Amino acid sequence: MREVVIAGVGIHKFGRYQDKTFEQLGQEAVRMALRDANNMSFKDVQIAFCGHMHGGTGAGHRVLSGIGLTGIPIVNVETACASGATALQQAANGIAAGLYDVALALGVEKMPRGFMRMTSFPEWQMLSGLGVNPVGFALRATRHMALYGTTEQQLARISEKNHRNAVHNPYAMYQKAISAEEILNSPIVCYPLRLLMFCAPNEGAAAAILCSRDVASKYTGKPVTVAAVHTGVARYGTSQSASGIGDIGLSTRIQNTEITVALSQQAYETAGLGPEDLSLVELQDTDSASEIIFYEELGLCPPGEGGRLIDEGRTERDGDIPVSVSGGLLSKGEPTGASALGQIFEVTLQLRGDAGPRQVPGARVGLCHVTGAGGNAAVTILKR
Amino acid sequence: MREVVIAGVGIHKFGRYQDKTFEQLGQEAVRMALRDANNMSFKDVQIAFCGHMHGGTGAGHRVLSGIGLTGIPIVNVETACASGATALQQAANGIAAGLYDVALALGVEKMPRGFMRMTSFPEWQMLSGLGVNPVGFALRATRHMALYGTTEQQLARISEKNHRNAVHNPYAMYQKAISAEEILNSPIVCYPLRLLMFCAPNEGAAAAILCSRDVASKYTGKPVTVAAVHTGVARYGTSQSASGIGDIGLSTRIQNTEITVALSQQAYETAGLGPEDLSLVELQDTDSASEIIFYEELGLCPPGEGGRLIDEGRTERDGDIPVSVSGGLLSKGEPTGASALGQIFEVTLQLRGDAGPRQVPGARVGLCHVTGAGGNAAVTILKR
Repeated sequence: MREVVIAGVGIHKFGRYQDKTFEQLGQEAVRMALRDANNMSFKDVQIAFCGHMHGGTGAGHRVLSGIGLTGIPIVNVETACASGATALQQAANGIAAGLYDVALALGVEKMPRGFMRMTSFPEWQMLSGLGVNPVGFALRATRHMALYGTTEQQLARISEKNHRNAVHNPYAMYQKAISAEEILNSPIVCYPLRLLMFCAPNEGAAAAILCSRDVASKYTGKPVTVAAVHTGVARYGTSQSASGIGDIGLSTRIQNTEITVALSQQAYETAGLGPEDLSLVELQDTDSASEIIFYEELGLCPPGEGGRLIDEGRTERDGDIPVSVSGGLLSKGEPTGASALGQIFEVTLQLRGDAGPRQVPGARVGLCHVTGAGGNAAVTILKR
Repeated sequence: MREVVIAGVGIHKFGRYQDKTFEQLGQEAVRMALRDANNMSFKDVQIAFCGHMHGGTGAGHRVLSGIGLTGIPIVNVETACASGATALQQAANGIAAGLYDVALALGVEKMPRGFMRMTSFPEWQMLSGLGVNPVGFALRATRHMALYGTTEQQLARISEKNHRNAVHNPYAMYQKAISAEEILNSPIVCYPLRLLMFCAPNEGAAAAILCSRDVASKYTGKPVTVAAVHTGVARYGTSQSASGIGDIGLSTRIQNTEITVALSQQAYETAGLGPEDLSLVELQDTDSASEIIFYEELGLCPPGEGGRLIDEGRTERDGDIPVSVSGGLLSKGEPTGASALGQIFEVTLQLRGDAGPRQVPGARVGLCHVTGAGGNAAVTILKR
């Protein structure tokens, strides 16, 4: 298996863009990635994978037809909130196997109106009020509070940290610091989670150009190695076959989401690295409680000690294991198909030392984690 | 790169099934493929790729949650009419590269109402009447008639042959012989193409379980080797970026569809085989003229001689290069995401010698070809 590196990354700022098409969002990210890869010609790209959730038929084809008509295979891939990571994985696998030297992984999303309904929660969940994401997140949060004594103050501190980090990220939707007090005074959506403890579904795009180490010097002076990328579906994530995928979210959220534990262990093993080697982590902080729970599931601390991690400031940008230095989903928002590659964008800049005022000094290894609807999840480890 | 073989195949008869869900169609094909692979346990499958065009978010997850909850990565892939071939390709690549030993490729489709409109033809094409498939097919047919003297009789003979073949295929939607005279007396849809010269968009599913040659003996006594699978997008297939994908079909249909020529040449080279080695071919006979044109583009005869091939009976089941012995799309119909794997199902049975009354005696090598919306295309070569 050949070593795979990231030659270039690009992004379209996450936000809401009524005046822009799906294609325009994606094209901006791809053009930026090509420029970033030493002005690579699109002719050098041998295959493209486009992750999206709501882009419709031919999503990647429509985006890339505005970049170049080169006749390469364009494969649209969908694994819900992990779609961008699946695009990255398929691109990396093809290069590792020697099938291609250069591959593009792209993620794009424009959220349709009423998309919460589109996730097809079963009728009983809708009627019971369980059929929307915040309810599942809140159940998971209260369970963590009951088991481990996690506090509302800790939840507020997570959101405070991530919003403070985002002030320095020009690609985040919200670039405004918010105090823990403001967060604790914001309206309750579903106890214990308040409005300012949630990420916003939004729009955007991100792209990464991958190549084999052998040809990397042509495109970049600062190659970042894809040390591991593992994807999977929560075992009990798809427990009601004919009812759509919404029920998954719920069932996996109430339980321990074993899939994150399993995939991170696989990724550490593949990379030959452990949690102690990580310089930074970007994870699926769709809400404050999720960040605390994923600290534990990713092995950053033992089970039940996630709250202490934020209390002790260890996941701050200047802590020993910075988490969500980009501002996380809480500040960037979550354009589902693009989200995972947005994390790859951030960690690539960090490992190159190019993250400006939000740089984690001396970053050498970064982990990206996504999970969501359909029980889909992915863990990627990058290193310089 | 490791040798990849087909361990099992399954299908849900193509047709129209108002009383069955998308999930049920897919599950029937997967269960049949598992049974066919020596009653393989679904636990042995390490990754699944689900090709579909209109299945919505989590399509493969919804299907496979009814088969088993094993936590494997499930990747939904979409390349329009080539989606099933892309699923096959990604599964084969992963095995060839040593990432997996056993992978599932699945294709499923339920056609939505009004799907022709969903392909997003640009407004000018709709207004001009060019915005529906039969018009593009007819333009391509008349061009072939003008250039090479192809006749209406030859077009009728293609459809007559394929419907005659389908009488012996229990998985075809239409299993009824139709005479050339009936076909020539059927209503003109768009000159020169008549109602009985078109395939029907419909529903169905097909699946193939792939494994490395090393483990094949556990699952099958008649392994069929995936000798080559190449996919791509027509260079001028996506010429109007923001307008959707429909325009592609039109532009590629009026021109020579270079993509079929390119991919078949690549596939012959990869397989170390040529057109003269083929025992049978399944191709994209969405209409009678397409079959004649693809004879030429796949190298079965020189340009312009496709009409002669049918006149001389060479593509009949007892000819020297049988084409569409399954009945082709003209008799089976085209459930877009499933169509390519339906061809793989047929050719696998043929190469095993298990095709019953439609068996091509002594079949050793088969080629499958799909192309369509988005300029997507694929050529696969299987051998025993």
